[in-house]
Amino acid sequence: MTAQVGAELLAGLREVLGPGGVLTDPADTAPYATDWRRLYQGRTAAVLRPANTREVAFCVASCAASGVAIVPQGGNTSMVGGAVPSEDGRQVVLSLSRMRRVRAIDPVDMTMEAEAGLTLKEAQDAADAAGAKLPLSISSEGTATIGGVLATNAGGNNTVRYGNARDMVLGLEVVLADGQVINALRRLHKDNTGYCLRQLFVGSEGTLGIITAAVLKLRPRLAEVELALCAVPDEASALTLFSRVRGQDAGALQAFEYMSATGMDFVLRHIPGAVLPLAAPAPHYALVELGSPRAGAGLRAALESVLAEALEAGEITDAVIAESGAQRAAIWKLREEHAEAQKREGASVKNDVSVPVSRVPELIVRASAACRALIPGARPVAFGHMGDGNIHMNLQQPPDMDPTAFLARGHEVMEAVNEVVRDLDGSFSAEHGVGRLKPDMLAEWRGGAELDVMRRIKAALDPAGLLNPGKVLPPG
Amino acid sequence: MTAQVGAELLAGLREVLGPGGVLTDPADTAPYATDWRRLYQGRTAAVLRPANTREVAFCVASCAASGVAIVPQGGNTSMVGGAVPSEDGRQVVLSLSRMRRVRAIDPVDMTMEAEAGLTLKEAQDAADAAGAKLPLSISSEGTATIGGVLATNAGGNNTVRYGNARDMVLGLEVVLADGQVINALRRLHKDNTGYCLRQLFVGSEGTLGIITAAVLKLRPRLAEVELALCAVPDEASALTLFSRVRGQDAGALQAFEYMSATGMDFVLRHIPGAVLPLAAPAPHYALVELGSPRAGAGLRAALESVLAEALEAGEITDAVIAESGAQRAAIWKLREEHAEAQKREGASVKNDVSVPVSRVPELIVRASAACRALIPGARPVAFGHMGDGNIHMNLQQPPDMDPTAFLARGHEVMEAVNEVVRDLDGSFSAEHGVGRLKPDMLAEWRGGAELDVMRRIKAALDPAGLLNPGKVLPPG
Repeated sequence: MTAQVGAELLAGLREVLGPGGVLTDPADTAPYATDWRRLYQGRTAAVLRPANTREVAFCVASCAASGVAIVPQGGNTSMVGGAVPSEDGRQVVLSLSRMRRVRAIDPVDMTMEAEAGLTLKEAQDAADAAGAKLPLSISSEGTATIGGVLATNAGGNNTVRYGNARDMVLGLEVVLADGQVINALRRLHKDNTGYCLRQLFVGSEGTLGIITAAVLKLRPRLAEVELALCAVPDEASALTLFSRVRGQDAGALQAFEYMSATGMDFVLRHIPGAVLPLAAPAPHYALVELGSPRAGAGLRAALESVLAEALEAGEITDAVIAESGAQRAAIWKLREEHAEAQKREGASVKNDVSVPVSRVPELIVRASAACRALIPGARPVAFGHMGDGNIHMNLQQPPDMDPTAFLARGHEVMEAVNEVVRDLDGSFSAEHGVGRLKPDMLAEWRGGAELDVMRRIKAALDPAGLLNPGKVLPPG
Repeated sequence: MTAQVGAELLAGLREVLGPGGVLTDPADTAPYATDWRRLYQGRTAAVLRPANTREVAFCVASCAASGVAIVPQGGNTSMVGGAVPSEDGRQVVLSLSRMRRVRAIDPVDMTMEAEAGLTLKEAQDAADAAGAKLPLSISSEGTATIGGVLATNAGGNNTVRYGNARDMVLGLEVVLADGQVINALRRLHKDNTGYCLRQLFVGSEGTLGIITAAVLKLRPRLAEVELALCAVPDEASALTLFSRVRGQDAGALQAFEYMSATGMDFVLRHIPGAVLPLAAPAPHYALVELGSPRAGAGLRAALESVLAEALEAGEITDAVIAESGAQRAAIWKLREEHAEAQKREGASVKNDVSVPVSRVPELIVRASAACRALIPGARPVAFGHMGDGNIHMNLQQPPDMDPTAFLARGHEVMEAVNEVVRDLDGSFSAEHGVGRLKPDMLAEWRGGAELDVMRRIKAALDPAGLLNPGKVLPPG
């Protein structure tokens, strides 16, 4: 059991962090205690806002000395309640929001050293200003922070080319549970000197240490981008199209997104300005994007040729290639607004799952059927990163059902989808992580030796269990 | 202190592994007890050769019950004595050489599941037969095994494009120190479900668990490859050329290797058939390779254009583009035969170091000067993976010096180079790892919080210290 937050602890923290560094007024702390999906309503006695790594270390050491638990928080955009404190008010929130400096950018090394509280968007912009590209892109990038995207190993739209957040990290600065600081902000592409600690902290959701800064790999800025929206007759054809495009130029393929007719219909009905740039609606859609840092790379011709082949083979029935940046943005908007359109259509249950790429069509077909069987009239909205095997296998309420009654069956829905996912050798969480929502699933899916090793590592690095308790690992 | 290997343990192992599974005759075990560089002459009471994962688990559990230490071994091609047993004969060698199956290849998922004892070359060939590419390439690939390249996070010639071995691993099967088996052979590109254990075992050099199989990411086979050898006036120009080529098409650049005049001269003098395809020798050389899975990607024109720009800018003084596969092989041979040519030229000290890419020129200049100052007449042979910041900063004996006397100063040479590397924020081991050669350097360079966490992880996963003792971590 962790300790209550005492007045003495807060006084000590105020002395070092200053009055603005320690929020205790409930009106100030409340926004930090609820997740944006409103799955959890936590409480916290204090929000700590250290301004630098030294202050983070001081906060952690002080709390450790008092036995007080800490919930690290970046942009608080977790989909699984990963950054909210518990309801008992015993956990303090440590917000990295004041640590938002770009410490260095080197366009020759193609690296950026950024602090944890910088938003992903700010980091992208800084890279761009230096003539480079930080190729991580997620819907919440205006709010999500570097620390958060690393702690959760964020994915997004371009992982098919660049990998997840984990693949962009060269170096890390981490405050450990006892207040020690790991300074491993190395800018090295090769460094085989002992255990790869950075990859242990990345994706550990703040339960093993608090990431305070990172060295990120950058890429050359793109000179050519080509984007197509394709009408696809069935799920299997979408996969065949993916293989075809990847086989033609895997080095240029930077997004391959799948959308169903249902989701597209929601977007077209609810989102102002959304227009389908094809002659007629289709049962399925694929969004294909190529990019190259080389002007004159011939991507337009390459895309036209691969789409012509796909049309010939019957894998697509129609396609449009964006003619301008504005058209590209308009097509991307059809994909990006899926979450908002679902919200406007009513209640929905979200399911971020993955399977081997070859099994995506079967996943969509079988999980959709399972959802319809569970709740007649409910509407599956499958969309997402087909090229990574990562589908948001969401379910929209039946039009005439009470939203609350529908949401009450959320766990059943997740279980029904998960049963299919498991049968296809997939995972119950592709990019959203475990957080507070899914530790039970972790126990069920990763039990045995894997969970045993995770527990031993947690005990080794945070023996008192003070870092983000209740997240990731199920109760022991 | 670990236990002696007893007759009872060996009898129990023979019962399960069969007589061919347990070698005890010194004539049979000796080859397993010496590293190929002949830095270490170990002894072992037994070499265990389990045929499958179940047998590996049995070996480990049996040894653990007897308190006997195990040295896991793949192709035994470590550059740092990472796979040799100690001199006291108390450590058994566990060779994965009988586990060499390709369990599955899926050209849609672009994954291969391979057992640890398969050689890297065999794995490459299996991928090729399936129309795909396993893009990891190292000089020892005919002997080095999948288990070994993963345990040591091997690098090689194509990391500038595809990353290190760690970047190719989706799933792992690992036998833990207590004989438990982690079966995490997942084929998922996104799977955020708890701590990233696979990246902890990758690069841990067999000290945390024994890798028995892996799921590897494959890439599309290349349809176009273009290779150039360039004459470069100085170290800084080589770096500028690298930035130029990367900026033009980072997605196609798959090798950027640096060579000095000294190393090239050794190759031309000692390697039969080696011919310089340029009009005249140069002070420095760069090897640039582009590749694309797309036929008609226009790489030839792209390479010609970037080299013309570089010539114009004075970054190169001459260049030749290979006109055939045979010419490509001949150019690559000039690079690949550096190690052999050095051996024929006499004794040399090897130094596998890395620095931020932007600092490679300074590394070569300063470390070469430091070596010359330390041993007058000694000849620096700098070459390697400039695009990764990884230079083999080797030193060749003075022609008239006694080789043994020269090698006796090996540690001094490493220290002199390391002093420069450290000043440039580099690393004492880029791709060769720590093994038995460099635990002292690990203590010196990674001491404090990093080493503390490594030790805690080691204690959590191998509390009795029975897995590859004496490697990676310095004595506690």
